[in-house]
Amino acid sequence: MNTASCSERTLMDYCPDIKIVDCTMRDGGLVNNFAFTDEFVKDLYRANIKAGVDYMEFGYKASKELFSPEEFGKWKFCNEEDIRAIVGENDSPLKISVMADVGRCDYQKDIISKKDSVIDLVRVATYIHQIPAAVKMIEDFKNKGYEVTVNIMAVSKVNSDDLDAGLKLLAKSPVDVIYLVDSFGSFYPEQITKLSEKYLDIANASGKIVGIHAHNNQQLAFANTIEACRVGVSLLDATVSGMGRGAGNCYSESLLSFLKNPKYDVTPIIRFVEKHMLKLKAEGTVWGYDIPYLMTGILNCHPSAAIKFIKENRTDYCNFFQELMDVE
Amino acid sequence: MNTASCSERTLMDYCPDIKIVDCTMRDGGLVNNFAFTDEFVKDLYRANIKAGVDYMEFGYKASKELFSPEEFGKWKFCNEEDIRAIVGENDSPLKISVMADVGRCDYQKDIISKKDSVIDLVRVATYIHQIPAAVKMIEDFKNKGYEVTVNIMAVSKVNSDDLDAGLKLLAKSPVDVIYLVDSFGSFYPEQITKLSEKYLDIANASGKIVGIHAHNNQQLAFANTIEACRVGVSLLDATVSGMGRGAGNCYSESLLSFLKNPKYDVTPIIRFVEKHMLKLKAEGTVWGYDIPYLMTGILNCHPSAAIKFIKENRTDYCNFFQELMDVE
Repeated sequence: MNTASCSERTLMDYCPDIKIVDCTMRDGGLVNNFAFTDEFVKDLYRANIKAGVDYMEFGYKASKELFSPEEFGKWKFCNEEDIRAIVGENDSPLKISVMADVGRCDYQKDIISKKDSVIDLVRVATYIHQIPAAVKMIEDFKNKGYEVTVNIMAVSKVNSDDLDAGLKLLAKSPVDVIYLVDSFGSFYPEQITKLSEKYLDIANASGKIVGIHAHNNQQLAFANTIEACRVGVSLLDATVSGMGRGAGNCYSESLLSFLKNPKYDVTPIIRFVEKHMLKLKAEGTVWGYDIPYLMTGILNCHPSAAIKFIKENRTDYCNFFQELMDVE
Repeated sequence: MNTASCSERTLMDYCPDIKIVDCTMRDGGLVNNFAFTDEFVKDLYRANIKAGVDYMEFGYKASKELFSPEEFGKWKFCNEEDIRAIVGENDSPLKISVMADVGRCDYQKDIISKKDSVIDLVRVATYIHQIPAAVKMIEDFKNKGYEVTVNIMAVSKVNSDDLDAGLKLLAKSPVDVIYLVDSFGSFYPEQITKLSEKYLDIANASGKIVGIHAHNNQQLAFANTIEACRVGVSLLDATVSGMGRGAGNCYSESLLSFLKNPKYDVTPIIRFVEKHMLKLKAEGTVWGYDIPYLMTGILNCHPSAAIKFIKENRTDYCNFFQELMDVE
């Protein structure tokens, strides 16, 4: 992974170090239980290649001891043969990513050596208190030959001292990228600026780069992503039509249109939306900005209560807001 | 109008100079032809008072020569007696606003002296080439005793020299507030920063303040509004559920939750959403972020083509994008 950072971000020119990670199937899989059709996945793979997207995340490498393959779609597990059924040898510039949660995967067994895998990037998702366990995984994946990122979740609930300590541990690890993750969609752009600068200071000093994964609870996922990009963050997560848990993510459509690198082209993604995303929505798959997600974002809490509220077709928003404040 | 500006904007404290203008009926009226029920208007008025909103814009003061009162709802014209039927003598801290478009109103006749009116604020909407005519209106409204703002529309299409010249003309006028308006929802936050600073430099030097009116084409209306606020803009436009032409505006729900002034309370607005906005949407009134609006935003053009596209239930987004680029 090229860790060189571009000297100046402008709205007119582009910096080749900026890269897009499509996580439609991974974060979107949390919405539909990873039940994507093969046609959807093949078309998304082709669309991402045509659009110049840099990485495509296929899903999780979840433990089959903890999660039953009968209850989840195959992209919860991302078996090597399932990915290969889509991408073959992946003879394309698009790199393949999977996510591995600390404590929820059998990584020693399920993540094979890079030389035998079509996967390029493994992203380790960790809570702050799991960082020592995350470092073990990072070391294993680097030894196996992968690019590796670490995504520290729920940092909006982490105090600054703990975050500093955690970032320092990660700086000493062989990880390539440290991710700023706004799990609850609770950060405002000026908070993203400060956090990005903190992450960049620590990461750059040890030759690493920084990524951002934003949620759209306050309709700030795109704004926060481009703000992080402006101050030097270079790996940018996006999903088609913002598909992702709860309020969803930064829209690929917006991000591809914003970035000026001529290798990017939003048209194949728009075409994909026409063919697949409209259908998905029409069939009743629900995600994206809504008042209950705004509320969990404002209150900096997990979207699970909002997801339940919406699933129950409730619209008594005021009661819900009070319920959330009781919990908090 | 208090033109004192607060020394420091922080996320934790608040600046009393920051004020909210609800323009649900004015910008939202462009969606439903100003056909709001009296119950809607009365409930919105009460909700705004309870929420601590500072101004409520009832609609336009449009010329009855140019626009037929039979073709539009009454809030296109905002007759004094229609406003009074809702607010009486407006014995509340909520101030009443109307908008007057340059060249589309009979302002000498239709805007009466402030001492006979329940209206507090008149907002003059102007294109850059109409500024001399706008200044005449501003002078008239100030002489009649009103607070007055000027809203320069479509500045994303105006070159810097013209904008500088226009702002200088307005700085010499008696207007209280100069508005930065992102008519096409095409600005990114860092452009808003620069423009806000330009407006603030010129406005503050002549004892005026600056307002912002954003559109949500790129899901940046809220982000742009709070970015402008961060650098010193103090009059912030918002609409309930973002109701407004095309992609709509900055959501009152988001803005009220963001601002820390204890006089603000989002709950009455949430309750209003429950009662009225869900119904409006269910009845088929359409506004808010959608791909066609993203496209007109990106291409910096008027949303009219996108509004037509959506009204025709088209979903061939790629064709539409090409059509827009032909026009441009």
